[in-house]
This record gives sequence, structure tokens and C-alpha cells, in this order.
Amino acid sequence: MAARRYAAAMTEVKLLLFDVFGTLVDWHGSIAREVHGVLGARGIAIDGAAFATAWRDQYQPAMEEVRSGRLPFSKLDVLHRRNLDVVLKDFGLDHVDEATRVHLNHAWHRLEAWPDVTPGLARLRLKYRLAPCSNGNISLMADLARRNDWHWDAITGAELARDYKPKAVVYLTAADAFDCAPHEAMMVAAHSSDLAAAAAAGLRTAFISRPDEHGPGIGETEAGVPVDVSANGLLQLADRLGCR
Amino acid sequence: MAARRYAAAMTEVKLLLFDVFGTLVDWHGSIAREVHGVLGARGIAIDGAAFATAWRDQYQPAMEEVRSGRLPFSKLDVLHRRNLDVVLKDFGLDHVDEATRVHLNHAWHRLEAWPDVTPGLARLRLKYRLAPCSNGNISLMADLARRNDWHWDAITGAELARDYKPKAVVYLTAADAFDCAPHEAMMVAAHSSDLAAAAAAGLRTAFISRPDEHGPGIGETEAGVPVDVSANGLLQLADRLGCR
Repeated sequence: MAARRYAAAMTEVKLLLFDVFGTLVDWHGSIAREVHGVLGARGIAIDGAAFATAWRDQYQPAMEEVRSGRLPFSKLDVLHRRNLDVVLKDFGLDHVDEATRVHLNHAWHRLEAWPDVTPGLARLRLKYRLAPCSNGNISLMADLARRNDWHWDAITGAELARDYKPKAVVYLTAADAFDCAPHEAMMVAAHSSDLAAAAAAGLRTAFISRPDEHGPGIGETEAGVPVDVSANGLLQLADRLGCR
Repeated sequence: MAARRYAAAMTEVKLLLFDVFGTLVDWHGSIAREVHGVLGARGIAIDGAAFATAWRDQYQPAMEEVRSGRLPFSKLDVLHRRNLDVVLKDFGLDHVDEATRVHLNHAWHRLEAWPDVTPGLARLRLKYRLAPCSNGNISLMADLARRNDWHWDAITGAELARDYKPKAVVYLTAADAFDCAPHEAMMVAAHSSDLAAAAAAGLRTAFISRPDEHGPGIGETEAGVPVDVSANGLLQLADRLGCR
């Protein structure tokens, strides 16, 4: 009975919404390499991985300024830049010039996908509408799609909703853009907190394990909350959702 | 000198924004066929072309309710449905049932592209970011893209801006979503009024002639306002913008 109800519920899903940073792209590895390379070329020796982690540590506090209403909605690129300036100062690198800062900030538009993502999205697209539901801005999402050869049906997420996840409005605005009720949309993410918020808003949820998200061996390997599906990547997700 | 300034200005364009109804798809022919077929199957003989024109005649007044602030932003699907009810009544067809109305309203998600559009967009995509900047809602745009095999970088337009063209905010929101200054974006449309508004907002403009938009021989054949480029379709536009 439970299995039959589960199968019935899954057939209602028409739209897959994807978290991007960590779930689809290796932000930590990509940023570490970029920082190491870009600053290294300017004669600055740096631990790229430590810098990537420090930059990301500023992510939630910056978005909280917007979620709380203290700051009007600003694209993630703007928040990333503010955070970059903070981290450069913390690393004793206040002398880094403006052009280098602009180039480094744009590293978030050049992130590399995990190997399963591009073929997995292509299979999932045969059965579902696909859209990112990320806190990244539209231009950032469009650049990652070009770079990694993804075909989205539309770009939803923070910029469309003008607020940041895990606020319910971000998930609900994404589903509504596709004329879907919340239960007709499934949030796909490597983070239990994202999936808990999506489920609370009425969406279905799929957990993707990314054990190396924050560096080797530092990432969620299993969901810490109840989810509808779990998979070790998008190819296994495609299998589990019956996409041949 | 003028030619050189023109060439220099064109090299700054990074983003092409497309009007959709009339410019990319044959709404009149598609709606006429759908109305004739759907109502015909229910035993109602109707002049599909006259119905399509009458339906479209309600388009601007409905959007004006939103532009003026009298109505909160509503997706075009909602306005189309309200207009459909008006037109069915005008045609003495108040007895048409709810399921048929829902199906007919969705005909706007099933419009056919002009023959040059799919190959033209594929060529233009090699050099430019591409997005629709239409008054149609996101799900409608996504369905037309699936049906006609288009690959957008993102879907911009009325639903993102939460207002309707020709209000400047719609063009400016679309350009900003791609981090473009207005002069780095080019609006592509078959309607002089759309291009005049885009130019007033600072965008570059390309006119596409669609002489049969409103039925055979009823459409704009040349721009009634100054534009940066004119073409007889997207393949010629690709030629003129140097996309091989």
C-alpha cells in the first residue's frame, strides 16, 4: 500500500527543480583552483581550498541580510563580491586590485559540473520540465548552463522570487512559473536543509549525495530528513524516476 | 564614419531579446486552426481566423488593466482566458463547456514557429545570449520552446518584470538579468511599437518583417521607426549580425 501510494504520488511530478552549488557543480574544487591560479599568477601564494571555504562561510550571513529585510534584494553576484572583499582582507590581501577582484568574483560563473550531471540532466529532460532553483542569479545560471551544456526550460530561483532560499516563496514561485501545484514539483538537492524547506512548502524531494562537496570527504552522504528519493548522482536519480 | 560607428555599436551587443507572438510564431494561423478544429469537433462551425483576430483584439486592453495598475500582475494565460470568455460570448457560444475553454486557452502554448525561426535561433545562439522578452508567461514560453526546439539561455519578459510591454521596466529587467547595459541588448520584433519602446529604453533594435502575421498579407513589412537592423526573418538576421 505504501509503495503504491508512493508510486502514485511520483507520477504527479512534472517539474524537477535543482539546487546548483554543490548539487550540480563542484563549487569548492572550482573556486579553490581559480583562486590558486588567479592569485598565483600575480605572485600571491595561497591555500585555494581554505580561501574557498572562507568565502562560502560568508554566504548564509550575506543572504540573511536580504531574507530578514535589512537589505533590499541584491543578486548573489553582488553579495559574493561584498564577501570576497571581506575574505581578501581577512587573508591579508587588501592590496589585490579591482580588475582581479572582478575576475575572481566571476569564477562563480565558471564552476565545473560533477561528471554525472550533464548526461543525467539530458535523460531527465525527456520526462520532466527542468529548472534550477538556486540562490544564484540568472546570468550566473545561464553561464553555468552554457559552460556545462545544460538545457533548462527556464531559470527560476532567487532572482525570480526576489528573495533567498530557504524562504518558501522561492520554491513556490518556481513551481508556479510552470503552472505546477507544489506537489507536482520535486526539489533535487545535496543539502538536507534545502529539502526540509522545500518539503515544508509542499514540494516532493530528492536527495543527491555529494560526499566531497566541501573538499575530499566533507559533504552530506545521506539525507538527514525524510525525502521521497535518494540517489548518488543524477544518473541514478534518472534510473529511480524511470527515465531510460 | 557613420558605418564605422554603427559597426562599433553592434559589437557591443551581447544579448538578443525576442518578441514571440508574431515575430517567432504564427499565432494567427495556429489559433485559427485550433479554434476551427476544437470547436468543429464539438459540432460548432466557426470562422477560425475571425475568432483568432477577435481574441487578439482583447489583448492590449487586458494588459492595459495591469500596466495602469487597476489590476495586479496576472499571467497572460489568465488574461487570455478572461478574453476567451468575452469572445465566446460575442460569437454566441456561451454554452461551450469549461474543459473545452481550458483546452482552447492552452492553444497559445501550442503555437507553430515560422519556418526560419528554429534554424535561425540555432545560428544566433553561437554568438549571442538569447532570451524571449515577451508578454507571454514563463510556462507558455517554455512550452513553445519545447514544441519548436528552441534553446533559450533564460526566459525573461513580463512575468520576470511583473508588468507588460511596452513598459520600459520589462526591457530593462531582461537586460539586467544578463548583467547587460541597455545598449548591450538588442530587441528583435516584428512590431514597430515594441521596437520604439525598446529603443526609448536604450536598447538596440532589429525589425523582422512578418507580412502575414494577422493573416495573409496583413502584417508589418517594414519598420515604421528607425531601427539598427532589418531582416526578412531570423536567417537573414543571422547573416546581417555576422553569425555564420
